Amino acid sequence: MDQKYQRFDTHALGADGSPRCASCTMRASFGKGEAEYSRIVSKSSAALLNSLWEKKQIPEDGWPDHALELFLSWLACHDTNNRVDITTVGAGEREGRVVCSLVRKLHCNLSHGIGRSGNIGDIQPKALGSSMLACLANEFALHALQEIGVVTCKAALVVPLCTGMALSLCMGSWRKSRPMAKYVLWLRVDQKSCFKSILHAGYEPLIVDPIREGDALVTDVETVNRMLEQRGEEILCVLSTTSCFAPRSPDSLEAISGICQMHNVPHLVNNAYGLQSEECVRRLNAGRSTGRIDAFVQSLDKNFQVPVGGAVIGTFKQSAIVPIAQFYPGRASCVPSRDLVLTLLSQGRRGLMETYEKQKRMFHKMKRRLSSFANEIGECVYDVEDNLISLALTLSSIPKEKQTLFGSILFNRGVSGARVVMSTTSKTLIEGYEFMNFGSHSNEQHGGYLNIACGVGMSEGELDELFSRIATTYAKFSRQNGLFVPRSDSRVYVDSDD
Amino acid sequence: MDQKYQRFDTHALGADGSPRCASCTMRASFGKGEAEYSRIVSKSSAALLNSLWEKKQIPEDGWPDHALELFLSWLACHDTNNRVDITTVGAGEREGRVVCSLVRKLHCNLSHGIGRSGNIGDIQPKALGSSMLACLANEFALHALQEIGVVTCKAALVVPLCTGMALSLCMGSWRKSRPMAKYVLWLRVDQKSCFKSILHAGYEPLIVDPIREGDALVTDVETVNRMLEQRGEEILCVLSTTSCFAPRSPDSLEAISGICQMHNVPHLVNNAYGLQSEECVRRLNAGRSTGRIDAFVQSLDKNFQVPVGGAVIGTFKQSAIVPIAQFYPGRASCVPSRDLVLTLLSQGRRGLMETYEKQKRMFHKMKRRLSSFANEIGECVYDVEDNLISLALTLSSIPKEKQTLFGSILFNRGVSGARVVMSTTSKTLIEGYEFMNFGSHSNEQHGGYLNIACGVGMSEGELDELFSRIATTYAKFSRQNGLFVPRSDSRVYVDSDD
Amino acid sequence: MDQKYQRFDTHALGADGSPRCASCTMRASFGKGEAEYSRIVSKSSAALLNSLWEKKQIPEDGWPDHALELFLSWLACHDTNNRVDITTVGAGEREGRVVCSLVRKLHCNLSHGIGRSGNIGDIQPKALGSSMLACLANEFALHALQEIGVVTCKAALVVPLCTGMALSLCMGSWRKSRPMAKYVLWLRVDQKSCFKSILHAGYEPLIVDPIREGDALVTDVETVNRMLEQRGEEILCVLSTTSCFAPRSPDSLEAISGICQMHNVPHLVNNAYGLQSEECVRRLNAGRSTGRIDAFVQSLDKNFQVPVGGAVIGTFKQSAIVPIAQFYPGRASCVPSRDLVLTLLSQGRRGLMETYEKQKRMFHKMKRRLSSFANEIGECVYDVEDNLISLALTLSSIPKEKQTLFGSILFNRGVSGARVVMSTTSKTLIEGYEFMNFGSHSNEQHGGYLNIACGVGMSEGELDELFSRIATTYAKFSRQNGLFVPRSDSRVYVDSDD
Amino acid sequence: MDQKYQRFDTHALGADGSPRCASCTMRASFGKGEAEYSRIVSKSSAALLNSLWEKKQIPEDGWPDHALELFLSWLACHDTNNRVDITTVGAGEREGRVVCSLVRKLHCNLSHGIGRSGNIGDIQPKALGSSMLACLANEFALHALQEIGVVTCKAALVVPLCTGMALSLCMGSWRKSRPMAKYVLWLRVDQKSCFKSILHAGYEPLIVDPIREGDALVTDVETVNRMLEQRGEEILCVLSTTSCFAPRSPDSLEAISGICQMHNVPHLVNNAYGLQSEECVRRLNAGRSTGRIDAFVQSLDKNFQVPVGGAVIGTFKQSAIVPIAQFYPGRASCVPSRDLVLTLLSQGRRGLMETYEKQKRMFHKMKRRLSSFANEIGECVYDVEDNLISLALTLSSIPKEKQTLFGSILFNRGVSGARVVMSTTSKTLIEGYEFMNFGSHSNEQHGGYLNIACGVGMSEGELDELFSRIATTYAKFSRQNGLFVPRSDSRVYVDSDD
Repeated sequence: MDQKYQRFDTHALGADGSPRCASCTMRASFGKGEAEYSRIVSKSSAALLNSLWEKKQIPEDGWPDHALELFLSWLACHDTNNRVDITTVGAGEREGRVVCSLVRKLHCNLSHGIGRSGNIGDIQPKALGSSMLACLANEFALHALQEIGVVTCKAALVVPLCTGMALSLCMGSWRKSRPMAKYVLWLRVDQKSCFKSILHAGYEPLIVDPIREGDALVTDVETVNRMLEQRGEEILCVLSTTSCFAPRSPDSLEAISGICQMHNVPHLVNNAYGLQSEECVRRLNAGRSTGRIDAFVQSLDKNFQVPVGGAVIGTFKQSAIVPIAQFYPGRASCVPSRDLVLTLLSQGRRGLMETYEKQKRMFHKMKRRLSSFANEIGECVYDVEDNLISLALTLSSIPKEKQTLFGSILFNRGVSGARVVMSTTSKTLIEGYEFMNFGSHSNEQHGGYLNIACGVGMSEGELDELFSRIATTYAKFSRQNGLFVPRSDSRVYVDSDD
Repeated sequence: MDQKYQRFDTHALGADGSPRCASCTMRASFGKGEAEYSRIVSKSSAALLNSLWEKKQIPEDGWPDHALELFLSWLACHDTNNRVDITTVGAGEREGRVVCSLVRKLHCNLSHGIGRSGNIGDIQPKALGSSMLACLANEFALHALQEIGVVTCKAALVVPLCTGMALSLCMGSWRKSRPMAKYVLWLRVDQKSCFKSILHAGYEPLIVDPIREGDALVTDVETVNRMLEQRGEEILCVLSTTSCFAPRSPDSLEAISGICQMHNVPHLVNNAYGLQSEECVRRLNAGRSTGRIDAFVQSLDKNFQVPVGGAVIGTFKQSAIVPIAQFYPGRASCVPSRDLVLTLLSQGRRGLMETYEKQKRMFHKMKRRLSSFANEIGECVYDVEDNLISLALTLSSIPKEKQTLFGSILFNRGVSGARVVMSTTSKTLIEGYEFMNFGSHSNEQHGGYLNIACGVGMSEGELDELFSRIATTYAKFSRQNGLFVPRSDSRVYVDSDD
Repeated sequence: MDQKYQRFDTHALGADGSPRCASCTMRASFGKGEAEYSRIVSKSSAALLNSLWEKKQIPEDGWPDHALELFLSWLACHDTNNRVDITTVGAGEREGRVVCSLVRKLHCNLSHGIGRSGNIGDIQPKALGSSMLACLANEFALHALQEIGVVTCKAALVVPLCTGMALSLCMGSWRKSRPMAKYVLWLRVDQKSCFKSILHAGYEPLIVDPIREGDALVTDVETVNRMLEQRGEEILCVLSTTSCFAPRSPDSLEAISGICQMHNVPHLVNNAYGLQSEECVRRLNAGRSTGRIDAFVQSLDKNFQVPVGGAVIGTFKQSAIVPIAQFYPGRASCVPSRDLVLTLLSQGRRGLMETYEKQKRMFHKMKRRLSSFANEIGECVYDVEDNLISLALTLSSIPKEKQTLFGSILFNRGVSGARVVMSTTSKTLIEGYEFMNFGSHSNEQHGGYLNIACGVGMSEGELDELFSRIATTYAKFSRQNGLFVPRSDSRVYVDSDD
Repeated sequence: MDQKYQRFDTHALGADGSPRCASCTMRASFGKGEAEYSRIVSKSSAALLNSLWEKKQIPEDGWPDHALELFLSWLACHDTNNRVDITTVGAGEREGRVVCSLVRKLHCNLSHGIGRSGNIGDIQPKALGSSMLACLANEFALHALQEIGVVTCKAALVVPLCTGMALSLCMGSWRKSRPMAKYVLWLRVDQKSCFKSILHAGYEPLIVDPIREGDALVTDVETVNRMLEQRGEEILCVLSTTSCFAPRSPDSLEAISGICQMHNVPHLVNNAYGLQSEECVRRLNAGRSTGRIDAFVQSLDKNFQVPVGGAVIGTFKQSAIVPIAQFYPGRASCVPSRDLVLTLLSQGRRGLMETYEKQKRMFHKMKRRLSSFANEIGECVYDVEDNLISLALTLSSIPKEKQTLFGSILFNRGVSGARVVMSTTSKTLIEGYEFMNFGSHSNEQHGGYLNIACGVGMSEGELDELFSRIATTYAKFSRQNGLFVPRSDSRVYVDSDD
């Protein structure tokens, strides 16, 4: 019989080996075959991990849980405080000690964070495992960005910061090279964190409201151009946004990029949850080919279904990421990096792409169903064809003063994330800046609408349930509030300057 | 500079390396030094695990958590359904599939159990990791038994069975060699599981009550001798017990062993939680040198502070363990084996011995404090000098009918495990057998007492709290029940035949 | 605005509340609305858990992970050593102390096991949570058995024992009521654990080989009848088997049950992995209606996709389970109970039924594909229509002496569980009993075959991969071994007495 | 018998209840007593959690693991995506979906992070549990700061940012109120992250080197005063540092605070790991009473033994924390908050204080042993009596060019955190700023030294091992490098301007 298969043949019935016995004698039963197998296992594990480390790419197929745990153990052993050959003595002021065993477990023994004092991109000699994790996170993020469609992306940096802070980090890192700049030209989108990122970076916003085009709110390209022409030197960068709530459209990155290049002004893109939208990705690519995009930022949680806590900054030049990384003053949590790596290892490239494909199918379904529901109740869905994530349903049948209540009821019925946006002429003050009609992305008055979105990870069941709850809630609400029969066209734009 | 230290010197301040940069360029920073270190880590991890597997001994010093996790990952990879080089296809009726991810996690991906159909000591080719775990558990158990003092122990088998079932397994495995036997001679100890293990094995008990010697209940050696003389052939084995509640003493293993050897009858010792008692261990050794002890059984949870579920069977001849292991009809949970191995790896030999040393100190302290409390309230502590775990405090001041209530109140005050034993002439029926005064180990009547025990793992704080609660509870109870001033000698034995 | 919705409306944009602030002032922001919500959460959680405990049924829909964890926390708090209102002082010899934090975590703080000394069905006052878990496991098992089709099942007991030990427990518990019995009449099936369970219970087997009917091996009903007629009193019970490897069929429970009833002999069914087979379940029901089935035993791991370690004993009379539970001498691990409960909670009734439906679809697919593969290579698939789990492919084209090697190669190619059964005239000795041609369920000689099975949990992908590997392996093996063109009919039965 | 104790008395032996039975009948055994107990458990758990939430204080004694897990489950249920009464449908762009089950587990089902878009101090209606966690973290941090000695601290904010970023956050938040400011006056300490935090906030540093006083490097108060006098308006704030490597001393917060108050300039203190130093805490208090400290920042990992990732910002006025919290642009990871809360719950106030007491004892021991070692080898320990964490040992016996190598060897011997600082006249460039002799906190030249620190969490064993390794390494190093007999006074300061 072939030597190689000698040992395990005993599992074939009919071939009866000598009886094996227990305890000390069980020891004797572990023979050459098992030793050989153990060697194969160790080599296979090592090969798996080494190959991952060598390629630094998301594997094609996802890894099972036990492989993820092996990976975590392997990484942890690379941190000095987890050395197995020698007990490390900590003689510094920060030695990765974790006193609560539950906390240590939740961190998989990786406690050193990433980066070194003053540079998030540095390797920590005492925490090589954590450093490897940070490196893999960057590489996986780059790989994912490319696979998702940002094919010419050249560098990615995972930061344990929210989108707003990451935007701010980019802006701050450009300060040195734009010494005259005092402003950031901001294409209004009513997310506080995006707006505040400008203030956080130490700049003043110059605000450009979007303009109405059909139902959609689109970039006021002309004004941008004019402002850069007039005050280019004083402007650190243009901050545009892709992913947003309807009826706002993604900004015209092609146009803005071209203008920025012409006027030699950096261009930063807030692509918060835009990776899941083909249109946002298309615009990134278009912007990159027609002009300049110096960096684009996306949320980890909104695009990759990990807990809140991180963002990934992408650049189209490899060198462009360096000053941004260097600008970070210190080390940081490795948790967002870890979560991203574990998730992508667990999904594999194939699994990741499937979640994105599914979002597309689900969005189209959601749009169809919302339109049909709108028809039934005499409302309509804003026609914003470039927004492939968020939808807006008019609420003209509900009196303005009751629209908010309708939103609250939905929330209490277990529909989270649906938002009622009602029109208002009152002003919202954010860090000293006044916004008319905040939440509508524009001063313009409207009849009130309901936003819903189809984020990556939404399931068929959820979608069904969503419409069932909206319908029931609406029916009951109408009945209780004696709502009028809605008008046939419910879109009413009122110029806010009126 | 020495080449070997070249890489990591950059952590020394003052020596400034070239700036490292992030993302893709972070990749470039992982140089020869890190690769070398990674190789060292992998070699060290492999060395640690291989050395453990080679020696199969409890390490001197405990392992930290991350090493335990590495160990579990390494083991798991040895099971075919966790192979990392190839995805195993399961074409059998039992493929270790675990559908609930939480359950899989709680089992560290080890789902195959130990043993093969019909033999718990067999290696499963498709579950080499689980088999290795079973083997290590046996070896560790043997090592621990020897270190704890059973120095001539030659084999140990960890079974996922309670003490009673393990006793039963031993008895059953001897059936073939004692074809005439119908009885097991049982030295009465009022634990149901010990008694029922005889019935479970298919034998009838011949019950020998202990006799009073001073305060203690000790083995009635003469009766045992007479019975073996008369009915030796019909007796499968003598089943003696070491660890028990005061005032019962450990059985006289020396005497019993000698008698058993003389009459050629096997001797099985129920050493349930006796490993922590020097006296029980001494008796095991003495029994072994003066006669025969065919097997001795101890609980894993009571001796090693693991969850309930397993026992370890020890024998003084290596060959003696084989028929016992083979007698087990099937495979079994690997959880008790895993828990034992993890616990001993985590404590190390040193840690294990410390917990045992501490039990000794704590027991003496408990005895001193209980005597002093007894004095205060005019009760006394039974003088059972060979019982180094359990103590009995007389309750003569409490009327018989209220003794049980006193126990219940203690329980409700958060004192668990303290038991009131009151004397009774009524009979308890266990599987058709009648016991007079069950719980007292003897038909003899007494004045009622309270048992407390000092198990391994008890802390100073617990001991203090225990006496504080006993004192408060007793004081309040006396006051509320208007108890008389207790008599000075509260021990009253009433012969049960009266 | 409606008071009830007052608080959460602030998430509706456009309605701007006063700015909330951080730290101590964050505290102030938690207002009446949040307090109310917290009360709702607490009530909902309590309601969920209480309703589970009241109904003691598998919920219709599966619970998400966080609810499982809530459930485990809730249970754990019911064990005295996890009390949160008071720190329990352990004054007994077994106090659920777990010294290794990793072990404690893997047991979700449930360390007391189930049962009390001497009765696995007793509630432990100091471990109410563990006792509740044990109770739920029994109830869930009963519910599952009924849903799966054993509709008249009246009681179920989850034991932390393998199938063989559980069979043995049943047999032992009947000893008292069958004082004359020395034998168990065993319908041969070549699983060691089933056979050894008889010896473990202290009985001698009377072996009845199956007889050939077409391709299948079926129950020799006549012989059984004759033997019970002759020696009924001496026979403890008949031990039949449903689930088994082809070409053995499930035993004719109808016939056996009737005979047992007629002769007043108990009937025990080894239904190891038979729950997933409609035919096995049908036979259980038929047996129950035509005669007596005193208990039937199934593996937890093979039917419910949990790790190895437990079995469930079912009875058709509620009272019949009591003596079996009482016969167990001691307490036991709660892990198998926990795993079952978590798995069924996580799947829900719906999910459980889906896994069973899927097994049926997959089996038919497997059968079709195996037949087609057999055709291609000139072999055939044994025609055993009542076996809906296991299939047998003839191996007539492979010389007898190489069949085992073929099995080994499959194993090394990552196909686990496929078994080559070659015919042999040599005898296997199991605990003193000789078996001719062990593994074939019969002395009869045959040309060798390969068994594969479709267990619950097998996926489409696995099935595809299985056939791909079998085909490749076979092709290469044929080439390397220069196999002849196979004969068209490969089934050759050789009477073993020849 | 007292009704209240009725149920559990059956655990008292002697009182024999009717036999309890298993399975369905086990169900029947759960009687009124158990139901009552379950109600008590639920009430106790609720009481524990409610009391925590009401008091928002670190409990006096630490909680055991199972209580921590209960706490996490309870929190998680408050996030809408973990509701147990209703399945939440996510119709927003961020719904806390976590696709990888391992990641979800590592986050204890808390995926929403803390804060809302644009304000880290806001309550998230859809993530009330996460919001409660954030609130508790702030409260616990405040409680801890007060207990540790910063008794007049009024507010604390836990941010998921490193110390540098947290310093930057403070500075940025003051921009609005100091519109003329362009500079931050920085008391030089050679930590990159502290320095870079200024640049990150968008300011230019004005650097004031410390001056030599005896062995120590202390604050150049006079220069600070002069600069504020001259350019007060242009200066955003003074950034001083307490905890640092010897021979630098903590800055003179008293003096600086007074000057800041006089010139009406904010004062920010980098108290990175200073909580464990009585002297640093004393200076904070002194600074607060003699003048102004607008905020002080400390690392979570260095002071509380949690993984890297968070910082806590403290202020002496409650209102002062508000603008800092509001300045954060977005939501953020809840992990640092969670880690802090779990750790403090697990330690209790008592445990926390003990770790601090221990650090003090260990530091004094370290200092004694280092002095004695210095004596032996003819070196000396810098006399910096105000630095109670870090020590500096002169290395005059090792030639300058070999000092770094000595550090590397120590690292390879498993001593992490010990740093060799050699003197250099070359310059280090950090983001465009040149530093002479970076690492020495001063341009002044010296003979080279070794820094070691005694951080909180260092154990006796580690300390012993540390000195053993330093001694062996030094001995071998001397031998191999043929070092001269060291001079008796090894301190040589060379003015860097030479």
